[in-house]
Amino acid sequence: MATFATNCFKISFSSKLLLTCNGSRHFSSSTALAARMGFIGLGNMGGHMARNLIKKGHQLVVYDVSADNVKAIKEAGAEVAGSPAEVASRVTSLVSMLPESSHVQQVYTGPKGIFSAVQKGSLLMDCSTIDPYVSRTMATIAKQHGAEFVDAPVSGGVNAARDAVLTFMVGGPDSAYNAASLYLSCMGKNVVHCGPVGNGQAAKICNNMLLGISMIGTSETMNLGIKLGLDPKLLAKILNMSSGRCWSSEVYNPCPGVLEGVPSSNDYKGGFGTALMTKDLGLAQNAATAAKSPTPLGSLAHQIYRTMTNHGFGGKDFSSAFKFLQDQNEQKK
Amino acid sequence: MATFATNCFKISFSSKLLLTCNGSRHFSSSTALAARMGFIGLGNMGGHMARNLIKKGHQLVVYDVSADNVKAIKEAGAEVAGSPAEVASRVTSLVSMLPESSHVQQVYTGPKGIFSAVQKGSLLMDCSTIDPYVSRTMATIAKQHGAEFVDAPVSGGVNAARDAVLTFMVGGPDSAYNAASLYLSCMGKNVVHCGPVGNGQAAKICNNMLLGISMIGTSETMNLGIKLGLDPKLLAKILNMSSGRCWSSEVYNPCPGVLEGVPSSNDYKGGFGTALMTKDLGLAQNAATAAKSPTPLGSLAHQIYRTMTNHGFGGKDFSSAFKFLQDQNEQKK
Amino acid sequence: MATFATNCFKISFSSKLLLTCNGSRHFSSSTALAARMGFIGLGNMGGHMARNLIKKGHQLVVYDVSADNVKAIKEAGAEVAGSPAEVASRVTSLVSMLPESSHVQQVYTGPKGIFSAVQKGSLLMDCSTIDPYVSRTMATIAKQHGAEFVDAPVSGGVNAARDAVLTFMVGGPDSAYNAASLYLSCMGKNVVHCGPVGNGQAAKICNNMLLGISMIGTSETMNLGIKLGLDPKLLAKILNMSSGRCWSSEVYNPCPGVLEGVPSSNDYKGGFGTALMTKDLGLAQNAATAAKSPTPLGSLAHQIYRTMTNHGFGGKDFSSAFKFLQDQNEQKK
Amino acid sequence: MATFATNCFKISFSSKLLLTCNGSRHFSSSTALAARMGFIGLGNMGGHMARNLIKKGHQLVVYDVSADNVKAIKEAGAEVAGSPAEVASRVTSLVSMLPESSHVQQVYTGPKGIFSAVQKGSLLMDCSTIDPYVSRTMATIAKQHGAEFVDAPVSGGVNAARDAVLTFMVGGPDSAYNAASLYLSCMGKNVVHCGPVGNGQAAKICNNMLLGISMIGTSETMNLGIKLGLDPKLLAKILNMSSGRCWSSEVYNPCPGVLEGVPSSNDYKGGFGTALMTKDLGLAQNAATAAKSPTPLGSLAHQIYRTMTNHGFGGKDFSSAFKFLQDQNEQKK
Repeated sequence: MATFATNCFKISFSSKLLLTCNGSRHFSSSTALAARMGFIGLGNMGGHMARNLIKKGHQLVVYDVSADNVKAIKEAGAEVAGSPAEVASRVTSLVSMLPESSHVQQVYTGPKGIFSAVQKGSLLMDCSTIDPYVSRTMATIAKQHGAEFVDAPVSGGVNAARDAVLTFMVGGPDSAYNAASLYLSCMGKNVVHCGPVGNGQAAKICNNMLLGISMIGTSETMNLGIKLGLDPKLLAKILNMSSGRCWSSEVYNPCPGVLEGVPSSNDYKGGFGTALMTKDLGLAQNAATAAKSPTPLGSLAHQIYRTMTNHGFGGKDFSSAFKFLQDQNEQKK
Repeated sequence: MATFATNCFKISFSSKLLLTCNGSRHFSSSTALAARMGFIGLGNMGGHMARNLIKKGHQLVVYDVSADNVKAIKEAGAEVAGSPAEVASRVTSLVSMLPESSHVQQVYTGPKGIFSAVQKGSLLMDCSTIDPYVSRTMATIAKQHGAEFVDAPVSGGVNAARDAVLTFMVGGPDSAYNAASLYLSCMGKNVVHCGPVGNGQAAKICNNMLLGISMIGTSETMNLGIKLGLDPKLLAKILNMSSGRCWSSEVYNPCPGVLEGVPSSNDYKGGFGTALMTKDLGLAQNAATAAKSPTPLGSLAHQIYRTMTNHGFGGKDFSSAFKFLQDQNEQKK
Repeated sequence: MATFATNCFKISFSSKLLLTCNGSRHFSSSTALAARMGFIGLGNMGGHMARNLIKKGHQLVVYDVSADNVKAIKEAGAEVAGSPAEVASRVTSLVSMLPESSHVQQVYTGPKGIFSAVQKGSLLMDCSTIDPYVSRTMATIAKQHGAEFVDAPVSGGVNAARDAVLTFMVGGPDSAYNAASLYLSCMGKNVVHCGPVGNGQAAKICNNMLLGISMIGTSETMNLGIKLGLDPKLLAKILNMSSGRCWSSEVYNPCPGVLEGVPSSNDYKGGFGTALMTKDLGLAQNAATAAKSPTPLGSLAHQIYRTMTNHGFGGKDFSSAFKFLQDQNEQKK
Repeated sequence: MATFATNCFKISFSSKLLLTCNGSRHFSSSTALAARMGFIGLGNMGGHMARNLIKKGHQLVVYDVSADNVKAIKEAGAEVAGSPAEVASRVTSLVSMLPESSHVQQVYTGPKGIFSAVQKGSLLMDCSTIDPYVSRTMATIAKQHGAEFVDAPVSGGVNAARDAVLTFMVGGPDSAYNAASLYLSCMGKNVVHCGPVGNGQAAKICNNMLLGISMIGTSETMNLGIKLGLDPKLLAKILNMSSGRCWSSEVYNPCPGVLEGVPSSNDYKGGFGTALMTKDLGLAQNAATAAKSPTPLGSLAHQIYRTMTNHGFGGKDFSSAFKFLQDQNEQKK
């Protein structure tokens, strides 16, 4: 899902670096940047990201638990390692892209994990969306091994990964952010520095919590307006010229027929799955509980997506909240 | 509060009519438009609105329960009536601007109310924000008297009323909408036709419900992000370039210091009071209950604004939700 | 549904009156009590209630919009009237038992309504569960006609109506309460005086709001405990010996198999329908909004029952909240 | 707080064991039971619990970070160790009573922690209320050291700890439960077996979640009823004879003046602090998120207690939800 709708943000790293990366496919193999680097986690997102690094001239050493995933990227030119430890032993820069906190913990701290073989001075870039506390723990352990860990979760879905237009939200010290930007900008168009380690996750979590709230809010509002007799397109128009407007009402409206080319007009296929939104809001809840920060609407939104997932909406786009809140009895008529 | 932030909406009535109204202060007294008209309810909003009608050449017959309100508008050139009935007996077009459903019911159906003296063919324009069911009842009774009633609640606050840049959301048949537009466009810049009677209220309620949700959502998100270590301005920037963006995060951010010239940067003074937002969300709840449409976040937002009002935030801008959700113990430190 | 689980409450009217009613079926026709009385609304509940009045020696004049309902009670010995007005013209005491506020308004204030023919000194007992503000309006109009109106909503379902063990929560002045008790005690076992008119409704609404909350709370808790590995019966036992215990956990547990003879162990058939609970919580919300009293959990419970009704649970017992919150994907396995 | 209100539960271990413990203060020092045992965490609760073990004839080896806490129990006859490791090296049975998950992790797995010196065959009884997943992790590590770990969180407050009438909810295998019961029954009156390790925590969390919900539900209901004109004592009476009744309405009513001897009638002093309830509901939320079980009311209750804590109610009894939801403007009048 394209969670970043505009491109107007001034990125804080220099345009020279961006040019270096985007402007040239004939990379000198003598630069540090073009040296061999690692990539762990070659799923729907990671596969595309790894491919884009290869396209930009990087020689990859990769690892994934799935033989199929490994095979595909091997054919694209990557070298294959037998464990995260082997990857870490052969490179000094690596990217990881994993589903959940537990996978990150295992890949980094497990028996044949990265930390069992990491080289001093290595740069470890984790693009997974996980608990910021886990990111911070990984960074602390990395420091103990003389390495640098940054969290760099992405915004933008599978298509954005394929087209190298992801946005990265990076947490880490300035020097690590600058170094990481060289690699991350090969896979995305925006690389935003959010502060120290964990802040990339924090920014991602915050954005998705507000998104999750706004989407349900828009769904309730569209449903209510229709029940009160308003035409859905007119209602969307009024909201979007008014103070109720939000990304969900403007560019991703959950009511079928209001906008073209969005999941709501395609039976909620594609897009950002409700189960994934549920997972992200779960991370937001864990973070809010630990931070002692009240999030009443964020909590309730989490519960609603959880209930939706339990009712079979897990694989549908999260804008199907509109449908979930509708009168199912009426729909059958 | 300027609830309409943009001016890009194509209004459906002809620019010719707008010109007629905005372009000329030398109105021919022979036209129906410039004939005497009525105005009932001369409070903070109504006073400015009536004044704008006078400026555009209308001769007003007014009524208000407050002697002070009446005196001020009399000095501006209005004639004063002793009751809503008297107003109705002397004009064939009138505007009402009242605080709540109960006031509208009394002014229209009460002992010396409008319906006790309304003339056939009269056009009754109610700009109050009330229960859409009450609007529909008034329209039904109006029909029985051979008159036409439209609901036309406004978006935009006291300043927008003063500057004649309100937006009107109008419910009523085409002919009545067209006729009403002549008058309403003297007091605002947008006059949107929302469908049959009651739909103006419905649109207003829907917008404010989504606004109320988004504002609390933004407040939770800003508070959480800060607790997680993010800089508030950076967080707002990230949200606004991402899928979390909404009117509340972009142009009315509730976190002090993020934006200038908004209530949050002025100790939540001015703006749109929490008590008024509570009232509007109460209308939304009543409408949703009657329409059997679930609004979980809208309901919870209503409860939060209600609790805020009970805790002394009623007179502060509704963006003070940010402050209400903060750790008050920390604030004291 | 037997919403009153215990019988230990000291009723405030004298046992002498109770004896009069319960102790004797051979009523002197010369007493006021045994005179002809009216009954309007002969549905599932009203039919049983009317029958019990007949059994206790009352001669009924009845009205219902349904010919079938009327026929059944006519065969039991009642006289039939053609309108509420006719009933009112022929008796000085009557009971009404109607589904919603709007029906009460129509039957009392409509064209051929009770107030068009009510006699001075009449006692009007409304057993419907409706908006307390409507009850108070009816009482005010009754006073204008020299009659007395009390609200007397019931607790206890169809079986309790049949067995004359309902509980009545009565709102009205002492004298009216005392007079009404004579009749109501023929249809129930408890007649509780709750204060002035409207307070019967208030008590009913309050009880059902807390019940609605507790039932969802119990459902969440049972579901969570099971997911965490606890045996449902053991969990219920622990809750019921602890501070978590409530009527829903103890005598109406929503988890199938924990208790016998409750709807949850009969596929949620019978009992108190989710649609009815939704209606009652809607009344609670309207009352709370008007009273400016925050009810966050009550509001959310209302939204959950509303969503359940929209998902086809309207006709199932409200304890099916347990099932609604379960993982439907797992259930299919 | 006495979270267990009744004593009617049949405990599953034999009365003989209970007699052994409760019936005799002259313990034979040759039995395993009376051998030296350990106690770590001597705070408000732990101090009383340790004292009761001493009273029943046990020789304690204790550890606490607070010198004051240690001094007090030393005077009562305990031996003092310099670290959890030292305790573990000197005994084969020990009890821990710590504030949060992080403390348990540190005391058990930290540098001088229990696991660094634990003896084979040891019985480790953790009475802290923590994340059940942490309990399970501790049990797994214990197994690796040939020791047995049970979770045994308590219900009942400081007074119950002092009077040895706590209830223990124990998770662990039968043999460990039986062994633990010998010790736990010296400090409480009920020792309930809840299943495998972690289930003690699960039961505690479930009970307190439902309690937290019911208390806010009761608070909303009492506030609403009062606003609607009902007498608080009468309303409580009606609820308690009806389906709305719960522990919070019956024995711990949050409305001042309804019951004597409860925190609400003592300005919400004493009892179970809102901050502690917030912590417990946070554990419930973490568990529910991990278990993918929806808890909408539990989540919202957590958020409300969190907001209360942020508004200075953290040290007041959790029944102060009644006060928090009241109109503070009215209270000042």
